[in-house]
Amino acid sequence: MSQPSRERLVALRREFHRKPEPAWREFWTTARIVDELESMDVDEILVGPEVLADGERIAVPDDEELQRWFRQAEEAGANPDTLERLRGGYTGAMATLERGDGPTVALRVDIDGLPREESTDDAHVPAREGFRSEHDGAMHACGHDAHATIGLGVLEAVADSDFAGTLKVCFQPAEESIGGGKPMAESGLLDDVDYLLAVHIGLDHPTGEVVAGVEGFLAVHQFRAAFSGESAHAGGRPADGRNAVQAMAAAVQNLYAIPRHEDGVTRVNAGKVGGGSATNVIPEEAHIEGEVRGETTELMAYMRERAESVIEGAATMHDCEVELTPDGEAPGGESDDAIVDVVETVAGRTAGVDSILRNDDLGGSEDATFLMNRVQDRGGKAAYVGVGTDHPGGHHTATFDVDEDSLVVGVDVLTETVLALARDRP
Amino acid sequence: MSQPSRERLVALRREFHRKPEPAWREFWTTARIVDELESMDVDEILVGPEVLADGERIAVPDDEELQRWFRQAEEAGANPDTLERLRGGYTGAMATLERGDGPTVALRVDIDGLPREESTDDAHVPAREGFRSEHDGAMHACGHDAHATIGLGVLEAVADSDFAGTLKVCFQPAEESIGGGKPMAESGLLDDVDYLLAVHIGLDHPTGEVVAGVEGFLAVHQFRAAFSGESAHAGGRPADGRNAVQAMAAAVQNLYAIPRHEDGVTRVNAGKVGGGSATNVIPEEAHIEGEVRGETTELMAYMRERAESVIEGAATMHDCEVELTPDGEAPGGESDDAIVDVVETVAGRTAGVDSILRNDDLGGSEDATFLMNRVQDRGGKAAYVGVGTDHPGGHHTATFDVDEDSLVVGVDVLTETVLALARDRP
Amino acid sequence: MSQPSRERLVALRREFHRKPEPAWREFWTTARIVDELESMDVDEILVGPEVLADGERIAVPDDEELQRWFRQAEEAGANPDTLERLRGGYTGAMATLERGDGPTVALRVDIDGLPREESTDDAHVPAREGFRSEHDGAMHACGHDAHATIGLGVLEAVADSDFAGTLKVCFQPAEESIGGGKPMAESGLLDDVDYLLAVHIGLDHPTGEVVAGVEGFLAVHQFRAAFSGESAHAGGRPADGRNAVQAMAAAVQNLYAIPRHEDGVTRVNAGKVGGGSATNVIPEEAHIEGEVRGETTELMAYMRERAESVIEGAATMHDCEVELTPDGEAPGGESDDAIVDVVETVAGRTAGVDSILRNDDLGGSEDATFLMNRVQDRGGKAAYVGVGTDHPGGHHTATFDVDEDSLVVGVDVLTETVLALARDRP
Amino acid sequence: MSQPSRERLVALRREFHRKPEPAWREFWTTARIVDELESMDVDEILVGPEVLADGERIAVPDDEELQRWFRQAEEAGANPDTLERLRGGYTGAMATLERGDGPTVALRVDIDGLPREESTDDAHVPAREGFRSEHDGAMHACGHDAHATIGLGVLEAVADSDFAGTLKVCFQPAEESIGGGKPMAESGLLDDVDYLLAVHIGLDHPTGEVVAGVEGFLAVHQFRAAFSGESAHAGGRPADGRNAVQAMAAAVQNLYAIPRHEDGVTRVNAGKVGGGSATNVIPEEAHIEGEVRGETTELMAYMRERAESVIEGAATMHDCEVELTPDGEAPGGESDDAIVDVVETVAGRTAGVDSILRNDDLGGSEDATFLMNRVQDRGGKAAYVGVGTDHPGGHHTATFDVDEDSLVVGVDVLTETVLALARDRP
Repeated sequence: MSQPSRERLVALRREFHRKPEPAWREFWTTARIVDELESMDVDEILVGPEVLADGERIAVPDDEELQRWFRQAEEAGANPDTLERLRGGYTGAMATLERGDGPTVALRVDIDGLPREESTDDAHVPAREGFRSEHDGAMHACGHDAHATIGLGVLEAVADSDFAGTLKVCFQPAEESIGGGKPMAESGLLDDVDYLLAVHIGLDHPTGEVVAGVEGFLAVHQFRAAFSGESAHAGGRPADGRNAVQAMAAAVQNLYAIPRHEDGVTRVNAGKVGGGSATNVIPEEAHIEGEVRGETTELMAYMRERAESVIEGAATMHDCEVELTPDGEAPGGESDDAIVDVVETVAGRTAGVDSILRNDDLGGSEDATFLMNRVQDRGGKAAYVGVGTDHPGGHHTATFDVDEDSLVVGVDVLTETVLALARDRP
Repeated sequence: MSQPSRERLVALRREFHRKPEPAWREFWTTARIVDELESMDVDEILVGPEVLADGERIAVPDDEELQRWFRQAEEAGANPDTLERLRGGYTGAMATLERGDGPTVALRVDIDGLPREESTDDAHVPAREGFRSEHDGAMHACGHDAHATIGLGVLEAVADSDFAGTLKVCFQPAEESIGGGKPMAESGLLDDVDYLLAVHIGLDHPTGEVVAGVEGFLAVHQFRAAFSGESAHAGGRPADGRNAVQAMAAAVQNLYAIPRHEDGVTRVNAGKVGGGSATNVIPEEAHIEGEVRGETTELMAYMRERAESVIEGAATMHDCEVELTPDGEAPGGESDDAIVDVVETVAGRTAGVDSILRNDDLGGSEDATFLMNRVQDRGGKAAYVGVGTDHPGGHHTATFDVDEDSLVVGVDVLTETVLALARDRP
Repeated sequence: MSQPSRERLVALRREFHRKPEPAWREFWTTARIVDELESMDVDEILVGPEVLADGERIAVPDDEELQRWFRQAEEAGANPDTLERLRGGYTGAMATLERGDGPTVALRVDIDGLPREESTDDAHVPAREGFRSEHDGAMHACGHDAHATIGLGVLEAVADSDFAGTLKVCFQPAEESIGGGKPMAESGLLDDVDYLLAVHIGLDHPTGEVVAGVEGFLAVHQFRAAFSGESAHAGGRPADGRNAVQAMAAAVQNLYAIPRHEDGVTRVNAGKVGGGSATNVIPEEAHIEGEVRGETTELMAYMRERAESVIEGAATMHDCEVELTPDGEAPGGESDDAIVDVVETVAGRTAGVDSILRNDDLGGSEDATFLMNRVQDRGGKAAYVGVGTDHPGGHHTATFDVDEDSLVVGVDVLTETVLALARDRP
Repeated sequence: MSQPSRERLVALRREFHRKPEPAWREFWTTARIVDELESMDVDEILVGPEVLADGERIAVPDDEELQRWFRQAEEAGANPDTLERLRGGYTGAMATLERGDGPTVALRVDIDGLPREESTDDAHVPAREGFRSEHDGAMHACGHDAHATIGLGVLEAVADSDFAGTLKVCFQPAEESIGGGKPMAESGLLDDVDYLLAVHIGLDHPTGEVVAGVEGFLAVHQFRAAFSGESAHAGGRPADGRNAVQAMAAAVQNLYAIPRHEDGVTRVNAGKVGGGSATNVIPEEAHIEGEVRGETTELMAYMRERAESVIEGAATMHDCEVELTPDGEAPGGESDDAIVDVVETVAGRTAGVDSILRNDDLGGSEDATFLMNRVQDRGGKAAYVGVGTDHPGGHHTATFDVDEDSLVVGVDVLTETVLALARDRP
């Protein structure tokens, strides 16, 4: 077996970094991945609608927005044949390697960027070295450029090894909006998987540190509550209005006041709110983009149910209507010890790894849990591996960046884990 | 005609002052009034159920409370025959004088005390001169002792005059809880009335000042909202509870925030609230005793409707139930110019009157409006007359008192108005 | 005397209608007015900084915004010499006519448009007849195009009459943001005025109806409250944040709950609110653009003071900072009977007037009150005249329009009033 | 060694059960304990002020209340000499046994009752068998009658054994109001203790089950927030008031909305609230009796700090004052493994024990933590032991009762643990 060179990994990652595409808009990214897959010795390449269960995508942008990113991908030279298969925001891909008798191992990486501006500061490496985002208002600020690269790297290395079994690498779209995990899980393509690995880079761990099994996934549910009332002149006709901002404010106050739960961690946030049109007009619309989380899927469901009562009650209070739309959801998840053991052992003998944590808490949410739960529900095992990287800015900030040395570490640890899982069947 | 003497009026008033009885508990007071009526040359005396429409009394105390006051009236020597007719809290009386051909004039006075302690301070005349309340926690703190006295005084003076027509004097119970006006109005006994006078003493006007027609009655609706949820240990089982105090607090906040109305004055108050049992228990019950008001009955209805939405929504928010009980209600009201003209003229020639206001705003509520509206709806006219009195403490405070000189002024102005109305038919 | 023809008035109004410019951006409009003034026999034309007290303008847009509108005015062919005098958003003008011995009469009209899109519906006359707004997102939706026209028309008619005295016509900018009245009043240019007239078209009165003296101005104070806290990851670090949206919501709830005032009408509105950046981030900023009003300047001050306590308390509650910026303010105002009498009489003999109301309530706010108060404080008299116009859509809506017949009525009534005031000195 | 007989324990417990005395009122109870101590072979008996650090008692009732319970104890025949030493609510006692060379072991039991009515239902054993509470509105509803009994029983058994060392048994007052632990800890009397045992019966564990080391103590802080504003007539003078109920409601809403903390469990409760006097009066006072808790003392401090900001901000919002008084506080706590090991082992060979849990979460608060922390801070070790008992009603309910079989189990396990600790010095 021979690993892809550091140069190749760095080049790929920078290419992805230049063209960040947010959820369901990963047209160029998917096409570029497919280009690479086609150049490898891969047995099956599934794309777009083939890897996404029908009707399960969440928070897909409107047509105009999709068109804009589609055209931009065309102009950037994406393969037109692949592009055609992604129309309508069916992004993402899956590659399968079949190498004789052995277990089915899967690796899931996510590929979407974030809707935020990237730093132009000279201290920010992508800015200084000229591979900063080419798309205004979009950035790979969470390392999914590195994830796509690692996915390709592992595939290449395993293809070139004595691996016996089946390897599926899933390039999942729309993780940031927690919209892509569910349709990919419900596609059923992972139902025969024995071992599923998911990976994240960074997470405040330095280059050289590996977390064998990330824990503490919070199940999450995101929603948009749109309150509507009736406008009226605030001076002349105040009682003619039905005030959507009052309803929204009542909801915000009481959302945060949902009782804490004795069974574990819960969270709630009204992360983005707005309403009204002018100082002198009783506001006829207002909205909350919010989320609830729980240490378990049950705790998240508890929070969601209470949140719905709060929102409904707030609308009633001010004689408004409210439309509540789910925006994304992910269950809780757990890494299986059997795989964590293997990762721990493998990492212990991997060059470049100088610190191994068996477990660490994510304290956040991830829709990889949909895939993990799917596999586990059918008797397989799953683990979520953390690969440290020195990152100057925090995740989701304008100066986030990855230390490219960690690309090699990631590819090495995961490749060796895939091989060990196939070989040793823990 | 000869007026009752100042001494007689003062003696009566002090007798009433000593035995204040709150709403629907005016057993001794009614019986004492009937004693006086029986000693006069009166044509009809109606008592209790005869003057109150069936099923229309509001906020009647429970049996135990009624029994306690009934027994107290017995012990104080109230006429047992009269008392018997008042059983169950059917208090109040009406006396009719028929004196040949002429219009029907009515005078309404209220007779109930307030559930508050009276001052024992030596500067407080009733304390100093020994006619302070004999009943713990009850006091004539709004001058209804003077009203009952004036009602008897006017009856006596008119009976002794050349009055031609019919005079009805209504001794109305339960004004303070706005519970007595409606059943008395709906008794139908005032349906033939041509001119209705109501009277209030004080209202921040000094002795010698008369307000010919009080305006600005706010229609009022009082309610009790009882929220119920479920208790739980606040440390160990917080999510097991359904928090009635949270629901109550959300309701309070949003009640005061009901939009102001462009058509006129509105009011809202959560005057008395409470809830919960112990620091470490999620509160399972909470309540609001509140009120809404409006410059018109329509504005009050607007406030009431919005308040109901707020209360219902607050309960929904915190997964609680709520029971909303009306506690009392009075419509708005207006004095008719035709009577106000007469009062103004009469007052101008009455000894002891040195200042006359044609109109002044009450800025509060009164259930005399039920009787005024009833008479006006059937073609009669009504006015609410203010008789000033120097009062050291404000209405409803522990040091409220009336200047007894104003008793004579009240009897004189009202008697002469009754006579003028009968004579001149404005 | 000869009035300007209906055709001329309609042409002017449509020209203004095509180029609506919001507050402090009335570059083209002012220049166009000055063009007209220069073609008349006017004694003095003051422009921009000459008519605005230094440092008193409120809510002036930033330089970029001003530049944009300035350039647009240039491109539309505005007189460059005039434009030069308006640089920096010093818009507005005043024309003086001196015609021998007599009182000083002033007329104030406002000239700004609104930041809202105009209807493209064929039923909307400006759309159908081709004089709809040429500026995206701006519209004369409150008739100030008609006001500017009437100001010019009255000036022209008076100039051509036997008027003896001085006439000042003020073309005031920035009424909609209540930002222009104060600097124009404080310029001192009206300090010698004996009679001030202000005018508004429409106000739900039909063509042919005149309100001799509009009353019921609500004093108003507009503000922007910007809350700032600290962001944090909503899942992983909730307690690290300081939540500006919670502070804002608490403020909104309690602003509407400021107690009603016994002395008269009060209003409050959180007309436009927003905050936060993403579902999963504790919001670090939030804001309220709001207003308070009162029937009198004192009542507005009461509301303002209470609002400040609420906003400060809300920030304290959630450990946030808040910056409170005044955005505009106007006092209450009253029309003087002496002028109202004259308007009433004049209107009674004006062709096209078929209904006259002596008074009517505005139920809103106007910064003409700054000028009215200034004149009245120095012994002059003032009145605010309403000129009815059939308007299909309400004020400030996309389909607001004026019936152009009312332009002639407005010019006639105001011209004749100016002449009568000068002649008869009421 | 010989244990006290089951009959003796049952008799003692029933005697205590009949005379429940809430916090700082345990006059009879303390005197009765001292009677028993004096009948044993005890080396030192400290009482009242001798066991409570000066000035550290919290939430002591007023003199009148103390007097009432003192007199009641006198009348019930409490030893007057002992009583005299308890005057002023200095209740509680400590007994010391010195038996030669060996470690100092301490046992802490609490002795106060609760301010709640006991069930009269025949299904409730104390009611049926005639040892129900003799004091209206007070009840041993949390098993402290059993604790006092166990304390005496262990002392008696150890005194009668071959124990070598020092044993201190603390009979602590005022646990329910978390007021007694701190002054007893700060007395310094436990500063030389090597091993401290605390015990609680029940806690939802059945008879025969023992929890060797209870965990999950929540640090707690209780407070009373008293808001004061100004009253006014709600109809006539609403803006004259300063509404304390609005302030209270704003505080309640925002207290529950204090952000959850990433470092662990937090709690908040506004357990008892009230305010206002009458429907038609703007409320001038309102209050919250509340609490905050945290998994650690730091987390409790975080909640307390945020709660203070909320309460202060709420008062500011409505122009009210607020007085915030601490009502009780206890830190978090942990059982030491060294003792837990011993308890586990001892329990395993104790008759009547059929189930042993090494650890279990309390999920509540306890001021035994003051004593545990004090001992641990000075190098000693501590554990909190749970002794199961079948209890028909939940703790603090009217039908709580203990299965008297568990008295023997408690005495046995604790006695043997004391002996093992002294012997084996883990």
